[in-house]
Amino acid sequence: MRCEIVAIGTELLLGQIVDTNSSWIGEQLALNGIDSHFQTKVGDNFKRMESCIRQGLERSDALICCGGLGPTQDDITRDVISHIMEVNLVRDESIVGKIQEMFESRGRIMTDNNRRQADIPAGASPIPKMPGTAPGLYCPIGGKVIYAVPGVPYEMREMMKHFILPDLQKRSGQRAVIRSRVLRTWGNSESGLAEVLADRIEQLDQIGNPTLAFLASGIEGIKVRITAKATNEADAQSILSKEETLLRALLGDIVFGIDDETIETVVLGKLRAKNLTLAVGESLTGGVMSSRLSSVDPKMNIFKGAVISAPQTRTTGARRALKSAEYAREKYGTEVGIAVVIPDPCESRPRGTVYLGIIIGNKEFSDEIALPGDRDRLRNYAVISVMNYCRKLLS
Amino acid sequence: MRCEIVAIGTELLLGQIVDTNSSWIGEQLALNGIDSHFQTKVGDNFKRMESCIRQGLERSDALICCGGLGPTQDDITRDVISHIMEVNLVRDESIVGKIQEMFESRGRIMTDNNRRQADIPAGASPIPKMPGTAPGLYCPIGGKVIYAVPGVPYEMREMMKHFILPDLQKRSGQRAVIRSRVLRTWGNSESGLAEVLADRIEQLDQIGNPTLAFLASGIEGIKVRITAKATNEADAQSILSKEETLLRALLGDIVFGIDDETIETVVLGKLRAKNLTLAVGESLTGGVMSSRLSSVDPKMNIFKGAVISAPQTRTTGARRALKSAEYAREKYGTEVGIAVVIPDPCESRPRGTVYLGIIIGNKEFSDEIALPGDRDRLRNYAVISVMNYCRKLLS
Repeated sequence: MRCEIVAIGTELLLGQIVDTNSSWIGEQLALNGIDSHFQTKVGDNFKRMESCIRQGLERSDALICCGGLGPTQDDITRDVISHIMEVNLVRDESIVGKIQEMFESRGRIMTDNNRRQADIPAGASPIPKMPGTAPGLYCPIGGKVIYAVPGVPYEMREMMKHFILPDLQKRSGQRAVIRSRVLRTWGNSESGLAEVLADRIEQLDQIGNPTLAFLASGIEGIKVRITAKATNEADAQSILSKEETLLRALLGDIVFGIDDETIETVVLGKLRAKNLTLAVGESLTGGVMSSRLSSVDPKMNIFKGAVISAPQTRTTGARRALKSAEYAREKYGTEVGIAVVIPDPCESRPRGTVYLGIIIGNKEFSDEIALPGDRDRLRNYAVISVMNYCRKLLS
Repeated sequence: MRCEIVAIGTELLLGQIVDTNSSWIGEQLALNGIDSHFQTKVGDNFKRMESCIRQGLERSDALICCGGLGPTQDDITRDVISHIMEVNLVRDESIVGKIQEMFESRGRIMTDNNRRQADIPAGASPIPKMPGTAPGLYCPIGGKVIYAVPGVPYEMREMMKHFILPDLQKRSGQRAVIRSRVLRTWGNSESGLAEVLADRIEQLDQIGNPTLAFLASGIEGIKVRITAKATNEADAQSILSKEETLLRALLGDIVFGIDDETIETVVLGKLRAKNLTLAVGESLTGGVMSSRLSSVDPKMNIFKGAVISAPQTRTTGARRALKSAEYAREKYGTEVGIAVVIPDPCESRPRGTVYLGIIIGNKEFSDEIALPGDRDRLRNYAVISVMNYCRKLLS
């Protein structure tokens, strides 16, 4: 089962918008065991769209066209597809009704242009899930199929999850349930992880299920993705859980969370479980740590506050960070205080040197580490490093 | 002159990496007056890479292949291109020497794999600019050309700027200098801006030079890009400056900066010019404003500090924000204090209501605004709104 992606929109070619939709769709196809060998971007041009779609239908069994379903004159995906299907567009009055309802519920007036969004190639049908004003299109053609989805990421994703991926699985005759789980790690390189897991990877290469993949995720550490194939949901989850246990034993405490967990959600979760509150001192990181913590604790129930200022102290070494942590902790009356600072200029330590300080109750912990990268990366690495240190202390 | 882009790498199809390179290249081509009608992503597969490159050469005059020039067995761009050129790969010993030097300067050992990076199709030549260990390739074929560049963004960009874009301009016979300038605005919608500039856009449609484009740039407001064509640099800059003056007169004070300026660099610049220092109070925004300010004022010369905490005050209305601004100002002994807060729950104001407070010397300014979006957007909009308010007050 091969499925190609055609992303439509002149703004994509001009670089005014980065095409993150195709990447997301590509990832979902891979996770569902569907091959995707080509992804094409093309502008809002009839002839060129036609050639890309025809080529996709030749090379693949299914085609996902993303974009060009809006109400303006530029939006011609439905026209191109009906031309390729050699049929006319037919206005679907039930869709007109849905669009009208949506406009009314937002207190806006539907224009004639919006009615065009209800035009469907004869023989095609609207995709049942319709989160916005543009219906997706399910267009069977020969034994193959074109799915047309809007370029709005949320709308596209809903249609993918609830209709297109299940339909592709059905078409591929694949009855397997494919599920994945991501172990998020901090503190080892990709090659380091590969070494630790080398034996297990070799074993899995023999067994074939589950499979492992390493994903570098920018500044947020390296992810180890487990993908399992099974005949039903329960079996898939069971394979994932067994493999997770096995990998955690091999990887040790560098695993800080799974799937969508971030270092800050994990730390705040541990603090909540122990009924502790947190304050932070930020100089180097100047608000980066606070903005992450306050984003997941909007009511500031656990993260009570931060002091952001240039270091007021001439203390040297890691005590600098402890002083800053203590000051924040006292100011906000919390049990836990954490801080990251850079050395005082008089210490003449190498660039990238960072002191971490954590106070939990009457215990003090500090460390000196060396971080790479430009200032922006350094600030982010420092935040993750100190929060990861805190996570380990709270375990 | 048409130039196509082929991005190479299975990780792109799998969505493990978002293809930002093609977007950047597409933007640069557009800015230099070169048409780009198709962009393709293809995996590290000989046959499929071959078909994409052959098709690109049929449809276009030039082709930029991005990726697949590294040292591993997956990296086969140079093999595919030499196959299409019907020539052999020839090892370029001067490139081997360069790679060796680079490894030595980093204290690492060059492996045999790395030598492969010095293999060049006969008749092709290395792109003179070589910032990493992979040379770019300049491959003339018939009257057309393939440029192969590494997927590392920095290396690719250097080769684009210093070799490929000038070469494409020469090939296109275009002697024009094309330059652009971006006016950054905050406080009007895209359709609102289009209305204000409607007459001028109509005039420019007649004249043809310069041209205007609106670019929505996510949460950071809307950009108006002026693009000018001239026979030399000075004339291009003069056209840009004249148009900037004219547009500023029409747009008024919604223009907060040009090109790479951000709202925080502009505000800090104005404070510096007036010899004023700043402190901020953050509750809703919980560190977002501070992290932006400290990012561009790392020594905290002007931005002296922030207090991040849940609001301590039961004050209602915009006075809530003034209280928070005053508290931060007193704490850090600055002339200027700014804060954003949400209403006290007892006020039962609609979701999205935000109070802005600014104190400059002995003057107080406050406002109540309504902002859209989820929490993340709301926090960012609030930061930009209050800093933009501060910018206007300092003008």
